[in-house]
Amino acid sequence: MRIDILTVVPELLASPLNASILRRAQQTGHVQIVVHDIREYAVGKHRQVDDYPFGGEAGMVLKPEPIFRCIENLRGERHYDEVIYTSPDGVRYDQREANRLSLLGNIIILCGHYKGIDHRIREHLVTREISIGDYVLTGGELAAAVIADSVVRLLPGAIGDEASALTDCFQDNLLAPPVYTRPAEFNGWHVPEVLLSGNFAEIAKWQEEQALERTQRLRPDLF
Amino acid sequence: MRIDILTVVPELLASPLNASILRRAQQTGHVQIVVHDIREYAVGKHRQVDDYPFGGEAGMVLKPEPIFRCIENLRGERHYDEVIYTSPDGVRYDQREANRLSLLGNIIILCGHYKGIDHRIREHLVTREISIGDYVLTGGELAAAVIADSVVRLLPGAIGDEASALTDCFQDNLLAPPVYTRPAEFNGWHVPEVLLSGNFAEIAKWQEEQALERTQRLRPDLF
Repeated sequence: MRIDILTVVPELLASPLNASILRRAQQTGHVQIVVHDIREYAVGKHRQVDDYPFGGEAGMVLKPEPIFRCIENLRGERHYDEVIYTSPDGVRYDQREANRLSLLGNIIILCGHYKGIDHRIREHLVTREISIGDYVLTGGELAAAVIADSVVRLLPGAIGDEASALTDCFQDNLLAPPVYTRPAEFNGWHVPEVLLSGNFAEIAKWQEEQALERTQRLRPDLF
Repeated sequence: MRIDILTVVPELLASPLNASILRRAQQTGHVQIVVHDIREYAVGKHRQVDDYPFGGEAGMVLKPEPIFRCIENLRGERHYDEVIYTSPDGVRYDQREANRLSLLGNIIILCGHYKGIDHRIREHLVTREISIGDYVLTGGELAAAVIADSVVRLLPGAIGDEASALTDCFQDNLLAPPVYTRPAEFNGWHVPEVLLSGNFAEIAKWQEEQALERTQRLRPDLF
């Protein structure tokens, strides 16, 4: 899989894309992630990437031409399955969408910044608008990192057993049961007896009950 | 405001916390953000921070003692209004919660990693569990960065006019209207006539209509 991320703040993405699972997945060749500085596609001495909005609103808007050039350039090199724009008014991102994206070959993620991008880019070039949640961020960069992380960890072989995607929340529409590790007693707080019993049938039953109870209590909408 | 972030992958947070708005808000003294490496609170030669879960499940779990020590240490220095744990089964994060957090003085954000943290920490030390969305990430670090970014930009004076939080999505329960900037015509694509009219009453009317129409079409649940 290949993920191209377009941003005016490429330095923001340096460490999230080069730590932990994402670093390893790139080293092992499971994914190629390329960050593009939109400013490199701007023209003129000042390489201007933003400008005031028409209509006199507050805030700055990313200009259409540099983004257009960058996307056209990439599309000339290979086919892209989606051109994603991260925006709070996009479709709500969830594990189902992460699963869907993980099956694609090449995707572009375009990050807005300031007040957003010129709407013509959204109308004519973007194929999918995604919101990672109902809150406003300074830019789309953290949203792009969230999408990349959640998708790459689903690629077969990209993560080791220590992360173990199959027993994660949501993959069976249930919240995960509580987890405990050593010591069995700490600060007067005890691990539930059943987990120390060695009776794997009982443990599995307890975990399923806990997952159901937690989902019912905390997220009844998942049923 | 002060935000303490506890993680086993501090290097992942280096660039998001030190770019753009978050960097500026720290430089101007609007917020202090301190990242703590949980490993520094682990004991023994190997400074072990994780261990196998009781019950034989796959994955690794963060041990309770180092997290306990780190939180107790911080609490000995000052009062914290919330100890937040980022987890997909927490309460759904939204702009209302961002507004609420932005009014607090000191908060701790504890990041899970691998399969999560020992549940006793969640039961006894965490005061608020937050999910940034229904998807699984490799760790809570990106969620912590999302929370920090969305909260800090709401602090009075933390952002300049170019980001202009007041006209953002969600602050009035509506999606934002489309934005456009120069050139008025690009690649045969035109900016809506009304925005070029100079008639600010007409423009305001158009923006309100667009915000309502977009919200009705894309996010009717917001009404």
